[in-house]
Amino acid sequence: MTNLQGIAASSGIAIAKVYRLEAPDLSYSKKDIEQPEQEIKRLHDALDVSKSELEKIKEHTKNTLGDEHAEIFSAHLLVLSDPELIKPIEDKIKAENVNAEAGLDETANMFIDMFKNMDNEYMRERAADIHDVTKRVMAHLLNVTFPDPALINEEVVIVADDLTPSDTAQLNKQYVKGFTTDIGGRTSHSAIMARSLEIPAVVGTKDVTSKAPKDSMIIVDGINGDVIIEPTEDQVNEYKQKQEDFEQKKKEWAKLKDEPTVTSEGDHVELAANIGTPQDVDGVLNNGGEGVGLYRTEFLYMGKSQLPTEEEQFDSYSTVLKQMGDKPVVVRTLDIGGDKELDYLDLPDEMNPFLGYRAIRLCLERDDIFRVQLRALLRASVHGNLKIMFPMIATLEEFRQAKAILDEEKEKLINEGKEVSETIEVGMMVEIPATAVIARQFAKEVDFFSIGTNDLIQYTMAADRMNERVSYLYQPYNPAILNLINNVIEAAHAEGKWAGMCGEMAGDEIAIPILLSLGLDEFSMSATSILPARTQIRTLSKEDWISYKDELLSKGTSDEVVDFVKEKTQLR
Amino acid sequence: MTNLQGIAASSGIAIAKVYRLEAPDLSYSKKDIEQPEQEIKRLHDALDVSKSELEKIKEHTKNTLGDEHAEIFSAHLLVLSDPELIKPIEDKIKAENVNAEAGLDETANMFIDMFKNMDNEYMRERAADIHDVTKRVMAHLLNVTFPDPALINEEVVIVADDLTPSDTAQLNKQYVKGFTTDIGGRTSHSAIMARSLEIPAVVGTKDVTSKAPKDSMIIVDGINGDVIIEPTEDQVNEYKQKQEDFEQKKKEWAKLKDEPTVTSEGDHVELAANIGTPQDVDGVLNNGGEGVGLYRTEFLYMGKSQLPTEEEQFDSYSTVLKQMGDKPVVVRTLDIGGDKELDYLDLPDEMNPFLGYRAIRLCLERDDIFRVQLRALLRASVHGNLKIMFPMIATLEEFRQAKAILDEEKEKLINEGKEVSETIEVGMMVEIPATAVIARQFAKEVDFFSIGTNDLIQYTMAADRMNERVSYLYQPYNPAILNLINNVIEAAHAEGKWAGMCGEMAGDEIAIPILLSLGLDEFSMSATSILPARTQIRTLSKEDWISYKDELLSKGTSDEVVDFVKEKTQLR
Repeated sequence: MTNLQGIAASSGIAIAKVYRLEAPDLSYSKKDIEQPEQEIKRLHDALDVSKSELEKIKEHTKNTLGDEHAEIFSAHLLVLSDPELIKPIEDKIKAENVNAEAGLDETANMFIDMFKNMDNEYMRERAADIHDVTKRVMAHLLNVTFPDPALINEEVVIVADDLTPSDTAQLNKQYVKGFTTDIGGRTSHSAIMARSLEIPAVVGTKDVTSKAPKDSMIIVDGINGDVIIEPTEDQVNEYKQKQEDFEQKKKEWAKLKDEPTVTSEGDHVELAANIGTPQDVDGVLNNGGEGVGLYRTEFLYMGKSQLPTEEEQFDSYSTVLKQMGDKPVVVRTLDIGGDKELDYLDLPDEMNPFLGYRAIRLCLERDDIFRVQLRALLRASVHGNLKIMFPMIATLEEFRQAKAILDEEKEKLINEGKEVSETIEVGMMVEIPATAVIARQFAKEVDFFSIGTNDLIQYTMAADRMNERVSYLYQPYNPAILNLINNVIEAAHAEGKWAGMCGEMAGDEIAIPILLSLGLDEFSMSATSILPARTQIRTLSKEDWISYKDELLSKGTSDEVVDFVKEKTQLR
Repeated sequence: MTNLQGIAASSGIAIAKVYRLEAPDLSYSKKDIEQPEQEIKRLHDALDVSKSELEKIKEHTKNTLGDEHAEIFSAHLLVLSDPELIKPIEDKIKAENVNAEAGLDETANMFIDMFKNMDNEYMRERAADIHDVTKRVMAHLLNVTFPDPALINEEVVIVADDLTPSDTAQLNKQYVKGFTTDIGGRTSHSAIMARSLEIPAVVGTKDVTSKAPKDSMIIVDGINGDVIIEPTEDQVNEYKQKQEDFEQKKKEWAKLKDEPTVTSEGDHVELAANIGTPQDVDGVLNNGGEGVGLYRTEFLYMGKSQLPTEEEQFDSYSTVLKQMGDKPVVVRTLDIGGDKELDYLDLPDEMNPFLGYRAIRLCLERDDIFRVQLRALLRASVHGNLKIMFPMIATLEEFRQAKAILDEEKEKLINEGKEVSETIEVGMMVEIPATAVIARQFAKEVDFFSIGTNDLIQYTMAADRMNERVSYLYQPYNPAILNLINNVIEAAHAEGKWAGMCGEMAGDEIAIPILLSLGLDEFSMSATSILPARTQIRTLSKEDWISYKDELLSKGTSDEVVDFVKEKTQLR
């Protein structure tokens, strides 16, 4: 029996035998060849098979997980069609008279090394993409079987060094009960996919592959991050119980699907969901979401070779609005730049992209792009309960400018005889400290605020949330963050407006009582968090928590806040 | 007569004839050679002459401008001794049998292209360094005279595409009355040097080199950023008057050198200076500084191949403390990382270095480095009026941890029988929004605050101040910034502590009345700003400005604040 501790990446408990997903042997001999044209043909055959496999995986992912998750395969397909990669491989084969394997491997490695060494997250990701896809092409050149998790047909827990997105997308929930890896984090592609698939997962165990023998029993506890290899019978029974409890809990949550979200006194707050594509709406409704608190529109713009048209956007927006009926849908206008790039926009390289040219900053300069989106939104507005918000607002001037452009497009549409809703609320994200500090000034001009805690925390603490060296400073419960949130909510209420939150914090069980205490009106989270949050809120007394507010806001550290919340929530 | 508008980089007015500082013709023929060893010898001869020239320029700069400005030449000298550059040049000469010129040029260009294309400010700067020094080496290989501004012996205004740091460092103020360039910004090396040399300069005119004929008259107005080529007689007279007015003003300022800094009612505030090395102390005293509000200790660590010893640091700190007598000296502990790297520390490449591993975050992890500095400071404390502050504090825990390490070292020194002052105040920089928001909690534990506006503004506005695309968001007068500053000062005063400011804002004429209004106790700025600030403060009524405070804090935009200040200051 061996215990390992990793990162809980997808909740639930899996008990099954180990299935080792191992990389195939892709070693090859570099050979001098006489007919380069033949090698180039072999290369293209392998490329074509790989492409058609990836197309299938992409299609499958789209159907099971939605557009957002399928994105990664669009990127992979682009790599396989990129002349800047393919041409040098062909040149190498011709100039050096080497076989396709050597041409592919040496050229790909050159690019991978080059991109890896760049001080640029995107380039490093591109290096990973090239690595992932050239392995597949190499396997076809060598006629080696590439591991295919889709072929698994008995109940297993997958153990691997890491799972590629293509591995994860192919997992069949019926057989794959869980997975655990040596590397990876909670926000890696495969972890995010696992949560969508509801497959329990523990990642970053460092050495599960060296400790878990093939076909041995293994327990993966995706709630606490524990992995037990060759468990005792007692442990198996214990975890079976935990598994049942978890399933029971999920059933309890499900009962609240159509219940209102109320505190113990019966005060209502709104629980909404964050979505990325129209496919996500099913999940929102199935999980009892009372609205969409954040519709991220970036996916419409990603994995494409050009900007989406007004029609394409109109289709997506109206689909979501229609499906949600009279429930509110808060659409965030394009938030591109920072950690999200678009190839066809040719954004500048920046030293600090998180403090750079992105979101509304870009949209106000490139209002040609912005206006197309606003027109699509305005036209879609008649199909539901639309609210629009602008991301990364830092100054009142920016909000006024964005609003003026919206009004201009509205007027134009009306003059063109198009129908536009007259009741669209227009608000803003509060994710830059400046706007939280003088929320009072902004509250006079907006219809609502939505607090984006992911960014607000990283700017307020001056710590990149993606940077492991300073991740200890990403503190949602830091009293400074709570004071800023309080300031925003108070400012909104003073002007008769509402305040929501659409960062990860809104669905967090320590944060929820605090946010009730501060008077938050709307909580927007991932759809799967809605029912647990509703369950929790029904146990909390808003009155009690309001009485703790001053004490919470005067705490000195994050730990003091957490201790306080834990003490108060365990008391009841 | 031609008018150009550029960036006012160093104040004052210059009227003289144009001296075109032009790049020498460094074109060469690539030749096949038979004796590579001879070419390699030619290369090394050229390298040696270049090194000895750069050593001289470095020494000269050190004496005229101080260590900080001489740094850049240490970097240049390192390039010329770097085997990673020199070895490939030699290899190329040997492998391809080419002359030294071709070996140097092609190798250097390869590195320059590689570094230039990296998404990394430091690498781009390194590309500029290589470019700068290889031109000098090439000139020696070709026996071409390299432009030597030190040889100028008549009154001129230099007109150039750009000035390299080595050009600027060699300027003789007696003859070079001013300079103007096509490119560059206020914070480029040459602009900073020009201010230290007090040579008027306008940079970034875009096309002064194409418009200003050799030997024609030119006016450079470094106060407003205007350049007039071939001015009319009236213009010359007008600017001669402005020049006299400016000199007169400087004389007026000089009279206040030993006067107290008081408002019109006689209320005292402290005007201190920011320094980087002991050489800067003369400038502080000559400009009537009442203390050092920020002693940046990074220069001790830079341009070296290893960490400075405790003795080296002790020498610098005690020199400054002794020279300043009983005047306060606020030393900031090491703030490395972010935009300041040290080769020998091997800091991680980061996607957003401004939100990364730097300053106290690094010092708490690398307390081996931190403790050496603290010991040197504690030992130096007996030689003057030392105050210590920690940079980039984000949480109370960090401050407590840093303070605890300081206390430990103090105790150790006492146990070793060393003398340590008992009255050292220990404070912190307020440059991260989180600390400004909950300054009340911090004020209980610190002896003082020093607000670092450069960083505080960029984090609060989420805008990299080095990034031109978002520089419009670097808004010192944004009401959010003013509210945070107010919060810090109020918190300090509520606990009987003092609050200072050591960002550029403290010496700004629009900011000064606002900061008086908010009750700032200490203003720390570049030494040359002290006398103008003292002059201005003597005209301001603190009482009046305190009465404007609520109105200032409730403004919505930066422009509204500026308009308000301008209106009120013109009224009196």
